[in-house]
Amino acid sequence: MSGNSFGAVFRVTTWGESHGRGVGVVVDGCPAGLALSEEDVQKELDRRRPGQSSISTQRKEEDRVEILSGLFEGRTTGTPISMLVWNKDAESSAYDALRNRPRPGHADWPYTARYGIRDHRGGGRSSGRETVGRVAAGAVAKKVLTENGIRVAGYVLELGGVRAKIPNNVDISSLRDEAEKNPVRCPDQKAAEEMVRALDQAREVGESLGGVAEVVALGVPPGLGDPVFDKLDADLAKALMGIGAVKAVEIGAGIVSAGMRGSEMNDPILPGPEGLEFATNNAGGILGGISTGAPILCKISVKPTPSISRPQKTVDLSTGEAVEIEIKGRHDPSIPPRIIPVAESMVALVLADHLLRLRAAKI
Amino acid sequence: MSGNSFGAVFRVTTWGESHGRGVGVVVDGCPAGLALSEEDVQKELDRRRPGQSSISTQRKEEDRVEILSGLFEGRTTGTPISMLVWNKDAESSAYDALRNRPRPGHADWPYTARYGIRDHRGGGRSSGRETVGRVAAGAVAKKVLTENGIRVAGYVLELGGVRAKIPNNVDISSLRDEAEKNPVRCPDQKAAEEMVRALDQAREVGESLGGVAEVVALGVPPGLGDPVFDKLDADLAKALMGIGAVKAVEIGAGIVSAGMRGSEMNDPILPGPEGLEFATNNAGGILGGISTGAPILCKISVKPTPSISRPQKTVDLSTGEAVEIEIKGRHDPSIPPRIIPVAESMVALVLADHLLRLRAAKI
Amino acid sequence: MSGNSFGAVFRVTTWGESHGRGVGVVVDGCPAGLALSEEDVQKELDRRRPGQSSISTQRKEEDRVEILSGLFEGRTTGTPISMLVWNKDAESSAYDALRNRPRPGHADWPYTARYGIRDHRGGGRSSGRETVGRVAAGAVAKKVLTENGIRVAGYVLELGGVRAKIPNNVDISSLRDEAEKNPVRCPDQKAAEEMVRALDQAREVGESLGGVAEVVALGVPPGLGDPVFDKLDADLAKALMGIGAVKAVEIGAGIVSAGMRGSEMNDPILPGPEGLEFATNNAGGILGGISTGAPILCKISVKPTPSISRPQKTVDLSTGEAVEIEIKGRHDPSIPPRIIPVAESMVALVLADHLLRLRAAKI
Amino acid sequence: MSGNSFGAVFRVTTWGESHGRGVGVVVDGCPAGLALSEEDVQKELDRRRPGQSSISTQRKEEDRVEILSGLFEGRTTGTPISMLVWNKDAESSAYDALRNRPRPGHADWPYTARYGIRDHRGGGRSSGRETVGRVAAGAVAKKVLTENGIRVAGYVLELGGVRAKIPNNVDISSLRDEAEKNPVRCPDQKAAEEMVRALDQAREVGESLGGVAEVVALGVPPGLGDPVFDKLDADLAKALMGIGAVKAVEIGAGIVSAGMRGSEMNDPILPGPEGLEFATNNAGGILGGISTGAPILCKISVKPTPSISRPQKTVDLSTGEAVEIEIKGRHDPSIPPRIIPVAESMVALVLADHLLRLRAAKI
Repeated sequence: MSGNSFGAVFRVTTWGESHGRGVGVVVDGCPAGLALSEEDVQKELDRRRPGQSSISTQRKEEDRVEILSGLFEGRTTGTPISMLVWNKDAESSAYDALRNRPRPGHADWPYTARYGIRDHRGGGRSSGRETVGRVAAGAVAKKVLTENGIRVAGYVLELGGVRAKIPNNVDISSLRDEAEKNPVRCPDQKAAEEMVRALDQAREVGESLGGVAEVVALGVPPGLGDPVFDKLDADLAKALMGIGAVKAVEIGAGIVSAGMRGSEMNDPILPGPEGLEFATNNAGGILGGISTGAPILCKISVKPTPSISRPQKTVDLSTGEAVEIEIKGRHDPSIPPRIIPVAESMVALVLADHLLRLRAAKI
Repeated sequence: MSGNSFGAVFRVTTWGESHGRGVGVVVDGCPAGLALSEEDVQKELDRRRPGQSSISTQRKEEDRVEILSGLFEGRTTGTPISMLVWNKDAESSAYDALRNRPRPGHADWPYTARYGIRDHRGGGRSSGRETVGRVAAGAVAKKVLTENGIRVAGYVLELGGVRAKIPNNVDISSLRDEAEKNPVRCPDQKAAEEMVRALDQAREVGESLGGVAEVVALGVPPGLGDPVFDKLDADLAKALMGIGAVKAVEIGAGIVSAGMRGSEMNDPILPGPEGLEFATNNAGGILGGISTGAPILCKISVKPTPSISRPQKTVDLSTGEAVEIEIKGRHDPSIPPRIIPVAESMVALVLADHLLRLRAAKI
Repeated sequence: MSGNSFGAVFRVTTWGESHGRGVGVVVDGCPAGLALSEEDVQKELDRRRPGQSSISTQRKEEDRVEILSGLFEGRTTGTPISMLVWNKDAESSAYDALRNRPRPGHADWPYTARYGIRDHRGGGRSSGRETVGRVAAGAVAKKVLTENGIRVAGYVLELGGVRAKIPNNVDISSLRDEAEKNPVRCPDQKAAEEMVRALDQAREVGESLGGVAEVVALGVPPGLGDPVFDKLDADLAKALMGIGAVKAVEIGAGIVSAGMRGSEMNDPILPGPEGLEFATNNAGGILGGISTGAPILCKISVKPTPSISRPQKTVDLSTGEAVEIEIKGRHDPSIPPRIIPVAESMVALVLADHLLRLRAAKI
Repeated sequence: MSGNSFGAVFRVTTWGESHGRGVGVVVDGCPAGLALSEEDVQKELDRRRPGQSSISTQRKEEDRVEILSGLFEGRTTGTPISMLVWNKDAESSAYDALRNRPRPGHADWPYTARYGIRDHRGGGRSSGRETVGRVAAGAVAKKVLTENGIRVAGYVLELGGVRAKIPNNVDISSLRDEAEKNPVRCPDQKAAEEMVRALDQAREVGESLGGVAEVVALGVPPGLGDPVFDKLDADLAKALMGIGAVKAVEIGAGIVSAGMRGSEMNDPILPGPEGLEFATNNAGGILGGISTGAPILCKISVKPTPSISRPQKTVDLSTGEAVEIEIKGRHDPSIPPRIIPVAESMVALVLADHLLRLRAAKI
């Protein structure tokens, strides 16, 4: 059944496989009159592009976006925005040996179980390359948010066991700028250096590392979210858990809240310039599934890249026999640095969608 | 905008407020021919009912379900199943003092921001009482799953800092039976006793406690889930994060995966009786957003009950002034034990929906 | 699959069978703050109730609506509005003989083919009684429309071959008032008398009659409708064709347009008090699937009631043999007079939904 | 709000404007394993292409489809099928004079009212060129139907007042073949000649003509359709009314049923080789919104092309003044012949969707 669309009002549909003709996205429901250019989108695609540093995969991709519809004289027209990035530089032969041998930690086996047929080249549809469409759509969503005073920012909190130190009183709007200064996208420059070292060591021994990323949204007005099922935190959880390699999603205090007492967890309410404000933000900006006006705080735990340069056990589906495989080709030793623009995009898609949904709720 | 429905094929819509006429649910898309009785549903509602022990709130609710449609001669007809539970025993006066004073940790303020008007009595729509509809619908979903050899079971892993010890080689199908033997629904009887003590102590000082619950699904065939957005883990995350008080959702190894190396995280694939099986289950039964055939493992972190018997800071919305409030009435000192049937229901709804969606995917 | 909901933002879900416990509807997505009472809904239900005259079926139904949720102190809260009408006076024994003998012109056979099981009593889910839920929801939609200056009105244009004469320059806002003065709901009193006579004659010989009804919407602002698939006329066509017994839907000039030339069909555009207006309204207030600001004009052709008191050929499904059946019980000899409140409701649901959708389309 | 997708399981999203970069469609939910080639799609696109005869517009379009995703080794993979046709030969200058002057009978004014901004070149999004995406998607749907023994065929019944004579006992599966033999797609060759003459005369005087088309579906099994709102006839009505220029949709006897008596209208049920069959088919293959197993019969009334070479009254939106415009450029003098592949496609989309939905309805 159709599962390649996301959002109710601001609705995106991605398409494309890793080694097919290209990848793309159709954005439907974007309001008319928004200034938008290919450069706006390209800027975000460049952030997700691999090959920018020693940290990420060496595959050279230009990834130039083409906007094929929905724009007129530099503004959106309210009609679908179709965006396309051609695939290049795809060497599929490296995958031939794996055609019938599902890679551990990858989607190979369940895709076979689900569809019976599978484009095995480069991971096919389950490749990280599919996120090109998400990031392109996210760039449009971010423009909608910017018009409404909302900013989304992501960064790496932990990588390979190295944890960033974020001072309590830091201006969170500065964290992303700090993070963009290093290849692991960590706002703590010292930790970033250690993370890079950990990655180098892991690569040497054919290993990969997991980590934790955080995405925050600033300027979100109170009132976003549609209980009891389309709650803002529920939709954020779906958006973020649906990114490949994410194994946990936390809102606000997250798992820490399980060990807290009510008097610690509850954020005291104080009079504020806009009616009220919160003394703390354990809620992560969401109560009852609706935004409170405080910053939205999401954390994701990302597993280590499943493609490792070590022998692994699997089964040859054509013979049923146990075999050992070794995965060749270029792979990121860690996903969190490259997941940042994707995670930001998913949060932006959820917020843009709920912002527009809120408008439909007035007599 | 309408956010009170869940599911694409097996679709449920809940309605009702804590102190309104009643609460209920309409289940649309349940296949025809399923044997179903009010007793099937009542059994599950009885599990969520408060007042069963000293642990949970003292409110007496009979919560007798009435099935109003969709059944004929003991079987479903494929038409909507409407289920209703009348509200009784609602004393609303206790809430009068809080009408304009949003309770910290509750949905009071964001509902006001979202809707402008709010039924403040007993939490209105954001009350835990809304989950009656979820559990009733979940009972129907469980019947569909049982017909297909799938079983869903939940239990408490941690409460007030007390952690259950689950032996590595335990038969997970026995955990729920163990858990149902004590009021905190913990399969480790020793830990359960400690949890009860912790709750008693917390209640004495007007406090509340958080905890962790796990839900497993056994017998799920490979192939469930619709990438790239309606992945099985994404939909589970939405379903579980959308339960009140849940602040984190983990699949399989969850947050622990962030600290693992690829060779540890990847579950080796071995030949098995049904083609292949996995040596470990860090994936939690889901790869690439599709079930693998291994048990589905979900964990949720639940914050402490926001209603505590201690003075708390808030703002009177009618005057804008800082005030202190004390919440009276009966409240559970901890949510995890009562959240179990709700969490099981949400997992069952996701699985039943994706099971039916998979059928629509064949030529 | 779930097909019992209608609308994207203003979304209704009906439930219930003719001889079950009751019928009802859940309205989700109704904006908060709307004044609403049971009397508002009852007023519309009374218009659809049978037994008001010699024209319609003699079944006595009180059909008192109960609003179970979504209201607080006389206003909607933005949460689901659940409405219930209990079934009474159901004599099911008359249907026993027909359990395995599908009635010609009825849904008996396809329901059996679709679901395998069927509540045969009184037509079960396919009974006209299901429209109680539609009319109740339509009453809420009409309140939303009234707040926005929109009025929906329906009347009978033709019955049993008798055609009403509507003067060209008539004030269409007066047509419904005229129509409500007679039992066939025809605004031409002279034609109405003939229609009543035709019905009496038909009833005497065990026959039934078809007819044509028109629904107009006045005050609809330009801009409603979401091309290219959720066009306003497309959604109206779905809404109206989905009412039992409707076999054709026309917008504006309708089938007559097939015989026109371009210069006749095109409505000339003239300067008007609100920018522009149309010299004629062959378009029926919709161009390119979007409202133009002119009155919306819809016509439906309604087949004669399939239940007739004459012997009819069918097959006994348990034996496969050809048999003759005669349908007993009380039946309307003609549907158009009673379809009016249902058709108005469906048009109101479409307009309320698109009115709210339009709000979600602004940056 | 997003209105550019159609279907619940077999879901298509079209994009593109008349004079933009191109037009296309994403098909999501097509089952895996279906043999599909660009030639399958091209064949249908060639049927809708203009410039094939003196009857249709002279614009030269190659309209070569490119399938960008969702295929692997000649078969669908269950992932989205993205199809693209580049725009060529677009002269936009002819439209400059009309930028602020809405053409009567066109979507110019309501698009301006709806979106505030509008790509006026060639009708922009409301151009008939958008149907390229529908026909491409329809070609895929037809492949799914063929696999299931279902065939969809359309032809012109009436044009410019000339009515085809279809013998009562004709084999309807032959009608489309007959229709494809002449440029007006009418199965009655004699009537076709008259239609061509009528068109020539209309073109000479700068006029355009309307007409009636019929689409039939053969081999549809009983059981398709999801009451009470997603009935098969309701979805067909939406699909067909949503095609530009369609002003009426009829199922089976259609408007004629309004003048019939119950005993004439009801199709007698007889024993048949597959259980039962119908002596007549006034129902058009649908009862209670569900297919009966008899052929599905739909008729559409199509208004004359709004673009005519005669002076027409409109308003200049920049000045508010009444003006006269004359539309230049190439236009079909009549839409029905070219609407056939589009109408067939929409019917195919509805049937493929409901066929898959039916699969999701089994325990």
